[in-house]
Amino acid sequence: MKAMGNALPKREVAKVPEPTLRRLPWYLSNVKLLKQKGERFVSSTQISKETGIDASQIAKDLSYVNISGRTRVGYEVDTLIAVLEDFLGFTNIHKAFLFGVGSLGGALLRDSGLAHFGLEIVAAFDVNPELVGTRLNGIPIFHPDEFERKREEYDVRIGVLTVPIEIAQRITDKMVAGGIKAVWNFTPFRIRVPERIVVQNTSLYAHLALMFNRLNCNENQS
Amino acid sequence: MKAMGNALPKREVAKVPEPTLRRLPWYLSNVKLLKQKGERFVSSTQISKETGIDASQIAKDLSYVNISGRTRVGYEVDTLIAVLEDFLGFTNIHKAFLFGVGSLGGALLRDSGLAHFGLEIVAAFDVNPELVGTRLNGIPIFHPDEFERKREEYDVRIGVLTVPIEIAQRITDKMVAGGIKAVWNFTPFRIRVPERIVVQNTSLYAHLALMFNRLNCNENQS
Repeated sequence: MKAMGNALPKREVAKVPEPTLRRLPWYLSNVKLLKQKGERFVSSTQISKETGIDASQIAKDLSYVNISGRTRVGYEVDTLIAVLEDFLGFTNIHKAFLFGVGSLGGALLRDSGLAHFGLEIVAAFDVNPELVGTRLNGIPIFHPDEFERKREEYDVRIGVLTVPIEIAQRITDKMVAGGIKAVWNFTPFRIRVPERIVVQNTSLYAHLALMFNRLNCNENQS
Repeated sequence: MKAMGNALPKREVAKVPEPTLRRLPWYLSNVKLLKQKGERFVSSTQISKETGIDASQIAKDLSYVNISGRTRVGYEVDTLIAVLEDFLGFTNIHKAFLFGVGSLGGALLRDSGLAHFGLEIVAAFDVNPELVGTRLNGIPIFHPDEFERKREEYDVRIGVLTVPIEIAQRITDKMVAGGIKAVWNFTPFRIRVPERIVVQNTSLYAHLALMFNRLNCNENQS
């Protein structure tokens, strides 16, 4: 099938294995670099050299994407970038609400980089009267009571959760009841949701724990 | 073995399985909530009810930690919190440098929450002349040329990587050559390091891709 830069027809969206979805962005960034170096074609073998991932694994991962390589020349760099960015959902903007404008929440509101990867936080919610009615990085902050109304107004399906753990579940329930379909959970709390709701856990603290443990192990061996 | 709140003797630091290290922070936050509710003891069965994780799995995970429960009463809440926080490395501060004060890097410098989980970013590095010599959230920003000298001055072993992908590998090599032992990689680039160096990948973009894909799958089924 010829690769297209435009969005995949909905019916073709398949549930891609998590490991594949974690590796595809690596390929994307590597191919972007090759493009900067003036390369016009790239093979799985080349990507393998750059990333240290087995070439057959790369070919398998790329088989989920609507692109076919040409024998000997490999994949066309421009097309591969376009198709990967589209496939990963970075090309169409997904609007999101953020709940909890604390230290991390505020930091995420300031991180304009997320927009380059398809996430646009259009509004935030917090009970702090000093925040309600203000803007952070241009993003309006409302009181949680306004959530349902704002969700219909903005037609948002993604909620970013950066509240204290004591209210993580309550706010999640509120989000889901209000029509949120996917929760990006930055809290160290394991939230429970109905079956059809997507949860993406990104606990910086769990990652820290992992790094500290590995670091200590290495130092004890030495 | 009786549970102690203080640091584990180095020789006891074991390489804990990654899934366990990802679940332990969930137990910690749940037990913290139970403490707020006035609970003095907690059983794996209770934690299982709260988190939806199998009780035997929880007992197994907790067996890596230096704590023993009492039959019928379970674990003492205060002790379990202290031991988990200590075990996860949240109680002793690990100093770190941040490389690349862009949108995400700046956001992380502003997130004081990391300090509560054992990570203190003591200095940042960027080539931008408008940033060099300034402070962000009280954290000094230096030119990368000063890295080696500063690393000895601060005795830092952890580097947070938030640079553009084009220089991710070069900066990583520079960090490692300068004595950094663990790299917290926030870039979507797969960095290569010598065997004994710890890499923790936290690609917000890969997590976004995963969430977008799952969200699309659900919506196509409906």
